[in-house]
Amino acid sequence: MRRIKLIIAYDGTNYCGWQIQPNGITVEAVLNQKLTQLLGEAILVIGASRTDSGVHALGNVAVFDTNHRMDGTRIAHALNTRLPDDIRIIESYEVPLDFHPRYCDTLKTYEYKIYNHSVSNPMVRLYSLFYYLKLDLEKMKKAADYLVGEHDFKSFCNARSDVIDTVRTVTDIKIEKVGHMITITITGNGFLYNMVRIIVGTLLKVGRGAYPPEYILEILAAKNRSMAGPTARPEGLSLLNIKYLHESFQKE
Amino acid sequence: MRRIKLIIAYDGTNYCGWQIQPNGITVEAVLNQKLTQLLGEAILVIGASRTDSGVHALGNVAVFDTNHRMDGTRIAHALNTRLPDDIRIIESYEVPLDFHPRYCDTLKTYEYKIYNHSVSNPMVRLYSLFYYLKLDLEKMKKAADYLVGEHDFKSFCNARSDVIDTVRTVTDIKIEKVGHMITITITGNGFLYNMVRIIVGTLLKVGRGAYPPEYILEILAAKNRSMAGPTARPEGLSLLNIKYLHESFQKE
Repeated sequence: MRRIKLIIAYDGTNYCGWQIQPNGITVEAVLNQKLTQLLGEAILVIGASRTDSGVHALGNVAVFDTNHRMDGTRIAHALNTRLPDDIRIIESYEVPLDFHPRYCDTLKTYEYKIYNHSVSNPMVRLYSLFYYLKLDLEKMKKAADYLVGEHDFKSFCNARSDVIDTVRTVTDIKIEKVGHMITITITGNGFLYNMVRIIVGTLLKVGRGAYPPEYILEILAAKNRSMAGPTARPEGLSLLNIKYLHESFQKE
Repeated sequence: MRRIKLIIAYDGTNYCGWQIQPNGITVEAVLNQKLTQLLGEAILVIGASRTDSGVHALGNVAVFDTNHRMDGTRIAHALNTRLPDDIRIIESYEVPLDFHPRYCDTLKTYEYKIYNHSVSNPMVRLYSLFYYLKLDLEKMKKAADYLVGEHDFKSFCNARSDVIDTVRTVTDIKIEKVGHMITITITGNGFLYNMVRIIVGTLLKVGRGAYPPEYILEILAAKNRSMAGPTARPEGLSLLNIKYLHESFQKE
């Protein structure tokens, strides 16, 4: 038995997210089906990040176990020839059998794109949020600075989540604008359900002047989801990469 | 009667090109239908560039005539509320009745994107050509330099075209690479049928070493389509803008 790690990119537009569910096609279901066909045994992948419906990834991670002898690094190409063109395996390789993609120290980086202009752009509509109100980037950056560090992010967690420990560390938030496109890049050691999208929805409220930047401190202190801004739409969000700390086999 | 000019952006993925045709939906047909609904009279647009199936635009141009009193600059927004989200009017305004979008001196700029990596990227697959062979950019730039200027581009014109005068002026070709994405930007006073895509197909042959850069001179001299490279796929191509020279009403 060997364990294989996959680095996976996908356009989430046409998927009901990562995790298998009864109504609608998911990235996990497609990978299980195509791996089972390729290797001739029932394969079940375990994903690192169960991205929501419509969210994209450039570097999600999954593992699966197999008795097949195919070289780990060759599985990426063999699987790509069977996958639809909106899912691609960037890399594959063998990892120790005790490596679990969710129970390791990691740094995850997400990117959220906002097309901020008076008219939407058809060419970027699937991969960014269209937002026509003027945004004050300096205020957004100031608000973001209050979020960096170790905090209880309960106010930034979907209220339906049953996670008990809501303390997380955000190590960095960058906000940049090129042309009409604003990119918010967020890195941290773990994220609660919808946390990145609620952070973005809150930063948008700051950017358009509905909240002052300092209001972030009150939102954090309240530990109450209703204090923060709305959950920003999924199409602007991409999981860029997951860095596994303390993993000597790590190839990146 | 007034004449209104539209600057139009579209994602060409789901259209059979610009021009109305019996089998399949086109950008022109959608604009005619939505303008007719909006203005309550039969509207027929005249487009500047009849882009091919799958080709995108950020700044195509069209005009139409109307008796409706709606302010020219307000038509963009009113029409956008009715259009599908893969077509957007960037701007609209009234122009003189003798302005014809095709029979004016113009400079058109096209952009062709090539994702040059060993594995394709799902997030850019609809707006770039995936090309996995290594490309020598310096050779491509040298080849491109031979194409700049006034030439008979008959070798770079789809053989089915019945255009007689195949002399055109290419004023500039830029080739840049950011990450894995190569962008070829071509500006000229007019382009023959498939000319940009045949130029790109030929530059790709130079980039992978199948032709030396100087071979461009032989292709131009031959005035024979079969000498040039293949027509590159449509999804990498976008019409960026059309600049109308000598037009005093021009807003840009």
